[in-house]
Amino acid sequence: MQEEYMRRAVQLAQKGIGRVNPNPLVGAVVVKEGRIIGEGYHACYGELHAERKAFASLTEDAAGADLYVTLEPCCHYGKQPPCTQAIIQQGIRNVYVGSDDPNPLVAGKGIRQLREAGIHVETQVLKEECDRLNPVFFHYIATGTPYVVMKYAMSLDGKTACETGNSRWVTGEIARNHVQKVRNALTGIMVGVQTVLQDDPRLTCRMEGGRNPVRIVCDSQLRTPLEAQLVQTAKEIPTVIGTTCKDPRRQEEYRKRHVEILVTEPRNGRVDLRQLMKQLGQKKIDGILLEGGGTLNQSALEAGIVQHVMAYIAPKLFGGYGKYSPVTGQGAASPEEGWLCENGKLLQLGRDILLEYDIQNSSQAFGI
Amino acid sequence: MQEEYMRRAVQLAQKGIGRVNPNPLVGAVVVKEGRIIGEGYHACYGELHAERKAFASLTEDAAGADLYVTLEPCCHYGKQPPCTQAIIQQGIRNVYVGSDDPNPLVAGKGIRQLREAGIHVETQVLKEECDRLNPVFFHYIATGTPYVVMKYAMSLDGKTACETGNSRWVTGEIARNHVQKVRNALTGIMVGVQTVLQDDPRLTCRMEGGRNPVRIVCDSQLRTPLEAQLVQTAKEIPTVIGTTCKDPRRQEEYRKRHVEILVTEPRNGRVDLRQLMKQLGQKKIDGILLEGGGTLNQSALEAGIVQHVMAYIAPKLFGGYGKYSPVTGQGAASPEEGWLCENGKLLQLGRDILLEYDIQNSSQAFGI
Repeated sequence: MQEEYMRRAVQLAQKGIGRVNPNPLVGAVVVKEGRIIGEGYHACYGELHAERKAFASLTEDAAGADLYVTLEPCCHYGKQPPCTQAIIQQGIRNVYVGSDDPNPLVAGKGIRQLREAGIHVETQVLKEECDRLNPVFFHYIATGTPYVVMKYAMSLDGKTACETGNSRWVTGEIARNHVQKVRNALTGIMVGVQTVLQDDPRLTCRMEGGRNPVRIVCDSQLRTPLEAQLVQTAKEIPTVIGTTCKDPRRQEEYRKRHVEILVTEPRNGRVDLRQLMKQLGQKKIDGILLEGGGTLNQSALEAGIVQHVMAYIAPKLFGGYGKYSPVTGQGAASPEEGWLCENGKLLQLGRDILLEYDIQNSSQAFGI
Repeated sequence: MQEEYMRRAVQLAQKGIGRVNPNPLVGAVVVKEGRIIGEGYHACYGELHAERKAFASLTEDAAGADLYVTLEPCCHYGKQPPCTQAIIQQGIRNVYVGSDDPNPLVAGKGIRQLREAGIHVETQVLKEECDRLNPVFFHYIATGTPYVVMKYAMSLDGKTACETGNSRWVTGEIARNHVQKVRNALTGIMVGVQTVLQDDPRLTCRMEGGRNPVRIVCDSQLRTPLEAQLVQTAKEIPTVIGTTCKDPRRQEEYRKRHVEILVTEPRNGRVDLRQLMKQLGQKKIDGILLEGGGTLNQSALEAGIVQHVMAYIAPKLFGGYGKYSPVTGQGAASPEEGWLCENGKLLQLGRDILLEYDIQNSSQAFGI
C-alpha cells in the first residue's frame, strides 16, 4: 500500500510538468485509516508547495494521518514558508519520503526537524520512480547550469534529412507529437543559426495546453535575420541569442525587437557553450532541448554540456553522402573514444522508435 | 494442444538452420493418444525429409496417430520420394499442416492426395510461426534469386566507422556473436571489393558448430588482391567474384586459385546486381547476407535486390563528417521517396540494439 500511495504522489507530481521550473516536480498524498483525505502537487513556480496544496484539499482533519511526498520537505524560507512547519502543525504522524533533497547543505534537515517533532519518517520510498521525476532539477541545483537534452530524428541509415535538405518528415505524426511533449517539459529550446536560416522555425510548443519554451539561438556572428519568425515573435515568446558579437549597434537591432542578447568569448570562433550555459542557468533556465544540426550537436558534446540524448529513428533508408548527420565535426578517432551512452530506454511511437540514453558521466536519468 | 505440438515441430525445424538450403526448414511430430511417438526435422540438404525422419524415429506403431508438420508435405519425386506416400502407408489418421506450399503449381496437391486416402487434414495451424521459418525459401522458390539481408552496425549517430576508418568495434560482443548466427543461417555472404581492400576479411562463420557461407565479392574491375585472405582460403571455402571484367587471363588468375568468376554486363560502370543475383540463384544460393559498405548497400537497394535490413545500433556517438554511413550514394530526394521498411522487430543484444525490418514490397519476414 505504501508504494501505491507514493505512486499516486508521483502521478500528481507529473501534472506540474513544464510549469514549476526551476523548481522540482513534487506530489503529496495525505492518508488516514486507508483513505486518501488530501492530495496536492506543485503546480506552478511561485505557488504553494505540494504538501501545502495537499493540506489545502483536506476533506477531514489530518491529525494522526500519514503523508506521502515525492521529495524531502523543505525546511527553509524561500518563496514559500517551510513545509515542515505545516506538517508539524497538521499533526501528521508518519511521513514517507521518496527522493532525498539533492542539496547536500539542506539534505536531511527537513527530516530531522520532523523527527524532532516526534513524527516517524521513512525515506527512499519508491526512490527510483521519485528520482526520475527530477533529473533536470537535480542537475540544475548541483551545477547551476541547464540539463541539456540533445534530440534528433533520423532515418534507419542515420540521416537527419535527405541529401536535398528535405526533412519533411523524417518521422511520423506520433513521434512528432512526442517531441512537442518534450518541448513542453523543458524550459528552453536551442538551435544554431544555420537552422534559423534554413527552416525559419518558430520553435513553439504545439501541444494542446502546452507552454512555449524560451527560444535560444547560437549565432556567433549575429546572422539571424531580423525578419525571422523567432525575432518577429520575440515580444510574445522569450527569445535569446547567444553570440560572440560585441557590436552594441548590431545587438541593439535585436534588443529593440525584444530579443535578449547574451555574449560569450569566442571559442574556436564560435559561441562558448559552457559560458552560455552558465549565463542561461543564472536566468533560471534549468533545462534545454537541443534541436541542433550536426555541427551544433557536435560542439555541445565536445563542450561536455549534453546530459541526455533522444534519437527518434524512422523505418526508412534515405541514402545520401552524409551531409545531414545527427553529429558531425571531426569526431572520435576510434569507437571507444566516442561519447558513450547508458541507461537506455526504448519507446515505440507508431512506426518510429525512440532510443533514449544518458550521456555517460552525466548523473541523472530523464523521462517524459 | 494442437498448437503445442506444432510449436514443437517449429522448434525441431530450426535445428536445420544453415544446413538444408536451398530446401526449406521443416519439422514434424507424430502424436498418438497424447504421447509424442516420433519426431524429426529436415537436417541436411539431400537427406530425409522431416516426415520420414519422424517415422524413422517411431517408438510405436503410427497407425491411427496424428502428424504435425510445419510445411505442406511434398507429393512429387525430387531427391526423396514423396512424403504423402509415407504418411498414407503409416496409417496416419489426422495431419496438421502449418505453411502452405509456396509453389502455386504444387500447393494443395499433397493435401488432396492425403484427403483422397481418407486422412483428415487441417491446414494453417500456427501458420504465422511456421511461415517465419522460411522467408528465404519462399522468396527463392518464387523468384529464383537469393533473399538478400542487408546488415550493418552503426553508432547512435548513424556512423558505421569513425572518420579515421576505425570500426573496431562499433558493437559489443553479444551483438557480434549474433551476426555469426546470421552468417550461419544464410547460404552466402557478400561484400564489395572496397571492404576486401580495406579490411582483408575472411567472412567465415565463427559460431561454434557453424558452417561457412559462400563468400561473394562485388568487384567490377577485378581488384581483389590475389593474396587476399578470401582468395587464399578459396580452396577450402567456396568463393565467388562477381565482375564486369571479361579478360580471360585476369579471370584465370583467380580461377586457378579456386575462386569462381561470374561475369555480368556493366551497369553504371559496376556489376549488374540483378544479373548477379540470377546467376547466384542458379547456383542454388538461396539467401545472402549483404555486409556491404555504403556504396554497395545503396547499389543493392537501388537494384531492388534487398528484402530485409538488420541494423545493429550501438549506444555511442562518433561524430565525423559522414564518410562512413550505412547507405550512401545520391539517395532519396525526399523522405517519402526513401526505401520504406515494415514489420519492425527489435532485439536487445547486451548494450546494443538490433532493429530489423523488411524492405517494403518484399514479401517475407525473416527471423533468426
